[in-house]
Amino acid sequence: MSSRHPERLLLGPGPSNVDPKVMQAISAPILGHLDPYFLEVMNDTSKLLKYVFQTKNKLTFPISGTGTSGIEAILTNIVEPKDEVIVLVTGYFGSRISDKISRIGGKPIIINSKLGSGITHEIVEDHLKNSNANLIALVQGETSAGVMQPVENIGKIAKKYDTLFFVDTVSSLGGCEFKMDAWNVDACSTGSQKCLGAFSGVAPISINSKAYEKIINRSSKVPSFYLDLSLIEKYWSENPVYHHTAPTSLIYALKEALSIIKNEGLENCWARHSESSKLLIKGIEKLNLNILADIKYRLPTLTGVKLPSSTPEQEIRSYLLNSHNIEVGGGLGENKGKLLRIGLMGYNANKNNVVKLLSTIESFMETVKK
Amino acid sequence: MSSRHPERLLLGPGPSNVDPKVMQAISAPILGHLDPYFLEVMNDTSKLLKYVFQTKNKLTFPISGTGTSGIEAILTNIVEPKDEVIVLVTGYFGSRISDKISRIGGKPIIINSKLGSGITHEIVEDHLKNSNANLIALVQGETSAGVMQPVENIGKIAKKYDTLFFVDTVSSLGGCEFKMDAWNVDACSTGSQKCLGAFSGVAPISINSKAYEKIINRSSKVPSFYLDLSLIEKYWSENPVYHHTAPTSLIYALKEALSIIKNEGLENCWARHSESSKLLIKGIEKLNLNILADIKYRLPTLTGVKLPSSTPEQEIRSYLLNSHNIEVGGGLGENKGKLLRIGLMGYNANKNNVVKLLSTIESFMETVKK
Repeated sequence: MSSRHPERLLLGPGPSNVDPKVMQAISAPILGHLDPYFLEVMNDTSKLLKYVFQTKNKLTFPISGTGTSGIEAILTNIVEPKDEVIVLVTGYFGSRISDKISRIGGKPIIINSKLGSGITHEIVEDHLKNSNANLIALVQGETSAGVMQPVENIGKIAKKYDTLFFVDTVSSLGGCEFKMDAWNVDACSTGSQKCLGAFSGVAPISINSKAYEKIINRSSKVPSFYLDLSLIEKYWSENPVYHHTAPTSLIYALKEALSIIKNEGLENCWARHSESSKLLIKGIEKLNLNILADIKYRLPTLTGVKLPSSTPEQEIRSYLLNSHNIEVGGGLGENKGKLLRIGLMGYNANKNNVVKLLSTIESFMETVKK
Repeated sequence: MSSRHPERLLLGPGPSNVDPKVMQAISAPILGHLDPYFLEVMNDTSKLLKYVFQTKNKLTFPISGTGTSGIEAILTNIVEPKDEVIVLVTGYFGSRISDKISRIGGKPIIINSKLGSGITHEIVEDHLKNSNANLIALVQGETSAGVMQPVENIGKIAKKYDTLFFVDTVSSLGGCEFKMDAWNVDACSTGSQKCLGAFSGVAPISINSKAYEKIINRSSKVPSFYLDLSLIEKYWSENPVYHHTAPTSLIYALKEALSIIKNEGLENCWARHSESSKLLIKGIEKLNLNILADIKYRLPTLTGVKLPSSTPEQEIRSYLLNSHNIEVGGGLGENKGKLLRIGLMGYNANKNNVVKLLSTIESFMETVKK
């Protein structure tokens, strides 16, 4: 490790800092991907993932790649050429789902929200009725806008029309309420380095038997060997069959991070994120800054703060990073230069960090005034 | 970390153990994927990768996935539907290349070797003349058979016929001679957890301008967003554009591992692997066991040892693992139950490990005799 390696407080859209126990876990001796002890770790990891997804799905395991690879794994397996998919787009990450579907020959039917807002289940039902879609896809926590898209009511529509339902929870799982089975979600993917509090590089997913049936009844092979879930599930089975060299160290770090959530209790973990976020918003508004997302659709894990033209994004972010070792995100796309994206995720979602950040932003704004 | 977490000597087909400095590197504080200091790490990593690939290619960086994802990234970007590809198959991993090509609509033209043997450039030239192939693909280090496929002469054929040339060096790079530019290799991928001595989860690749031209002139988008090299290269450029949350900790561990190779000197590193392998083979033959690969085609980084029916593979592997914490690989496919696959890779390629392993195998065989 270089002496120049900085120690940052990561309050952007992820990665977040991790609990020291997770850091310790990744430094455990390296194990082979078929080591009998590692197979126990896999089993424990899968069980803990079921708890955080709130599911009984047997097929619950991490994909060996980042959050983006988990989303792609699900879409690439479920969507066949010419399949119509209703895609709810509340920002940048929703658009990416649509792009992924097009690349494999699927037909995305896009429903756009207004910036900072979500999409109602009535609108989704209208689109569904007028299409042949066999899948609805949405992002629960849209970090480009700090928007939380409601999931439960869309799940009811999916059930009513017997349509598959995929939810990307990369930036929300562990940080806000999500109940895969109770909300009729058939396929779900998430990230490891945000609210779950592990390292980037693995992407937990879960699919139920209805989604798996669609996969095994495909008329052609999945266009990816690496992400072929019918092969990956054989590795994550009781008698593991080699598919690729799983990143074992990342997986025992993930297991440790999930154990920490289990010990805290998932509901307590949701509440901690919610309280941190409320405290942040209160402080931000005291500084006369505005929140991008409508009050009905605010994401507890990431808050988009609109900046006046007198406070350039790059200046405040540089000040936070260079003078105080605090990382926050900036605006994407049309919001570039005009937004702070503040993440309070996993290990970092606590009052101390909120207070530290707010006082640092305040000191910056006082400097600007002078 | 659980007190039950074992400490293994990893002498299978990978992962291998890592240098303590690499273990220390992964425990450095987590950094964001766009942190200015991390951008320096990326730049250093790319430079060091150019050294181990022996290339000047600008597009040299790790894919965020395991070795299998690196191979898939290259094939998915270069091969378009209906493209013919000459695939040299010297074992299981060659067959997988063919499978990957078929999944994206390409047409593999397979040349099979005899078990334990490689394929001559004359045979490749014959196939190339009688096809419309625009790509030749091969695995340099076929770990299912312990075979090293010669690369240099195939590169000459590729150049003569102006065909693209892809080499999978997952199990060979850093452990045996490979010279990307001098040998006319247009695209190459490797693994991190074998001879490079880092953690599993990143897959370094390199492509030259000729291969990149094929990619940017595709008639349709790459069927994967996650592995789209035209997007990933923008993240690895001088002005990085977000594509996905790179596994930053894995990348600084990789940088540390590559620095260790640079300090040792690549040629010295190749020589160390070669010497360890020769010592192993000498000892194995003393025990009256035979090597699977023909003498002309032996892979220095992994040796396949044929087992007589009196010595079941599972028994010896269990003995090594459970009584001595030594992991070695077993046979794949037709060799299942009949082969030991012994890897001497990266940090583990040294005389001490060879001596330890040989004496442990010897003690097992004496037990069997009794």
